Amino acid sequence: MEYKTKHEFVQKEIIKLIEEKKLKPGDRLPSELDFQKQFSVSRHTVRSALNRLEYEGVIVKEQGAGSFVSDQKEKRNVKEIGVITTYFSDYIFPTIIRGIEKELTMAGYSMILASTNNDISVEEQAIQLMMNRNVDGLIVEPTKSAHYNPNIGLYMQMSELGIPIIMINAKYDELDFPLIALDDLTAGYESTKCLIDNNHYKIGGIFKADDRQGKERLKGYIKACSEFDIPYNSKNVIMYETETFDKVMAEEVAEMIRDKRITGLVCYNDSVAIEVLKLTWQYGIKVPDDLSIISYDNSVLSTMTEVKLDSVNHPKAKLGKEAASSMIQLIENPGYEMKSILYHGDVVAKGSVKALNEE
Amino acid sequence: MEYKTKHEFVQKEIIKLIEEKKLKPGDRLPSELDFQKQFSVSRHTVRSALNRLEYEGVIVKEQGAGSFVSDQKEKRNVKEIGVITTYFSDYIFPTIIRGIEKELTMAGYSMILASTNNDISVEEQAIQLMMNRNVDGLIVEPTKSAHYNPNIGLYMQMSELGIPIIMINAKYDELDFPLIALDDLTAGYESTKCLIDNNHYKIGGIFKADDRQGKERLKGYIKACSEFDIPYNSKNVIMYETETFDKVMAEEVAEMIRDKRITGLVCYNDSVAIEVLKLTWQYGIKVPDDLSIISYDNSVLSTMTEVKLDSVNHPKAKLGKEAASSMIQLIENPGYEMKSILYHGDVVAKGSVKALNEE
Repeated sequence: MEYKTKHEFVQKEIIKLIEEKKLKPGDRLPSELDFQKQFSVSRHTVRSALNRLEYEGVIVKEQGAGSFVSDQKEKRNVKEIGVITTYFSDYIFPTIIRGIEKELTMAGYSMILASTNNDISVEEQAIQLMMNRNVDGLIVEPTKSAHYNPNIGLYMQMSELGIPIIMINAKYDELDFPLIALDDLTAGYESTKCLIDNNHYKIGGIFKADDRQGKERLKGYIKACSEFDIPYNSKNVIMYETETFDKVMAEEVAEMIRDKRITGLVCYNDSVAIEVLKLTWQYGIKVPDDLSIISYDNSVLSTMTEVKLDSVNHPKAKLGKEAASSMIQLIENPGYEMKSILYHGDVVAKGSVKALNEE
Repeated sequence: MEYKTKHEFVQKEIIKLIEEKKLKPGDRLPSELDFQKQFSVSRHTVRSALNRLEYEGVIVKEQGAGSFVSDQKEKRNVKEIGVITTYFSDYIFPTIIRGIEKELTMAGYSMILASTNNDISVEEQAIQLMMNRNVDGLIVEPTKSAHYNPNIGLYMQMSELGIPIIMINAKYDELDFPLIALDDLTAGYESTKCLIDNNHYKIGGIFKADDRQGKERLKGYIKACSEFDIPYNSKNVIMYETETFDKVMAEEVAEMIRDKRITGLVCYNDSVAIEVLKLTWQYGIKVPDDLSIISYDNSVLSTMTEVKLDSVNHPKAKLGKEAASSMIQLIENPGYEMKSILYHGDVVAKGSVKALNEE
């Protein structure tokens, strides 16, 4: 048996004492100092081990009196994985979640879901819920991943309890959890290059500023512009945050569309592209004749309008399946070293990009 | 002669035509299309070359009439380097700037300075000023480097004109200019580890959220906490932005100090540490007996108070000298491939960190 950390070793040793009946239900555990000496580890290591055992219901801590072996009448048989996403009932989220669920069910795991609505205080409640449920692992799509997140302490606390955590779609810069996501930088580059290859020169962009995906897609856009000598015009690169989306669309984006400042537009995702389409209808702009549009995620939304949207493919169900199977590996195989995975997304052409004549 | 880009090649070819008197002052230049055919390059390449020649005063563009060879009576002999920093009259900035200036002067270059006061609209004016002055290179300390910056278009425009740009202290995530800076991630780690090595367990942090240095130092703090099983308590990790500093100090930080929630504190820089010291005087907290403090930059501020501050050394003058000499290389040696440089900063102990007894 391998142990990833010292506290995991201490934890298993204490469980062994219980299994060998050297410690029985109701017995008081030796003091932290005793364990420190017995296992030659630091106080923090002992505390981490006891915290994890408490989390698992193996022991009960009583303020001032010490820790006791619990009855463990109702030890859970089925392992449960927590899944926290920003949203789950629309867009690409149901597909990702089905991907996760299918894989977990096949392996005999159960799943509990929470969504944050991209609000960090809701995220805090979601993490607390997962900890109260004693989940065995956590798959998280971060909330506002481009900003400092005050909940990283809670994630670290779970991680210190030995609960594996996997990030999907994006990660918090401050935390080193493995990530499974679309390669957003390359996606941003490829989509912009697709417009350039079609002889577009005045190319605008709309990107989300509060998540990493938006920042990465913007970086890809900039990389392509820079490589092909396309001037970067700040007026035509519009950033929004979750809370400012409606206002930014109604003002800055509406003005850019109405004034025909661009011939091609890179949209943060299909939802944004649909809102842009509505503006083009309002101002009598024809897509793709007057304006070419390209977006990301290749969701159902990209096929629902008369002019279907060119969109970079997001791995969706495949990503969900991979997150679940990696999680199962992390739980069942203590030596498993998980690596981050970035999927390459191809542009799926459907008719919203028109080739201009070379000037 | 090597050329880094196609437009640089076109630019030099046009200069050759002028030097060989095939084009004389006042002559109208061939059209963009003529140049395109002559050099087998794209329209964008020709435009980039003409833009650079206009920037250098070699040609004059007249709306609708084309481009003309200028008189060039007053071609500048001394090369001028623009330097944009967030501040320049206090803290570590005078030392950095002196480092730059000394090196430039020795090489016969002149320097022009502008500061942004960490305000992106002031930064925009500063870049415009540098472009109007036709500077030959630009050394920039970014303004609010952790946020999307609408001025990146202007930086890209300068870069497309072939003007070399070097970032100091931090870089904009979206732009791939070379960076010369303190290794802030390692600095954050080492300073936190210094408190841990002195048996501190309740360690707070104050970091700046709007620049990359703050984010990197925070990451280092988290890395150290995580590695040594120190619980990460969000309440004791306080983030501020330029505009909220006074309020955050007066409220969150004051409360943390007053309530003695921590025994050790990592401060974003010496300026912040000095403000923390003032709070400790106010609340009768003794440094380092009741509270150990460590900060960054090892500036003069760290030696001005009765209890001198332990602080991670910032390369300051060395960094400035390196930025200037790299800039000179970039200008004088077209084949020069500049690499980013990160300096390791050691903790300079001066008495603000006290070793606690091992519990």
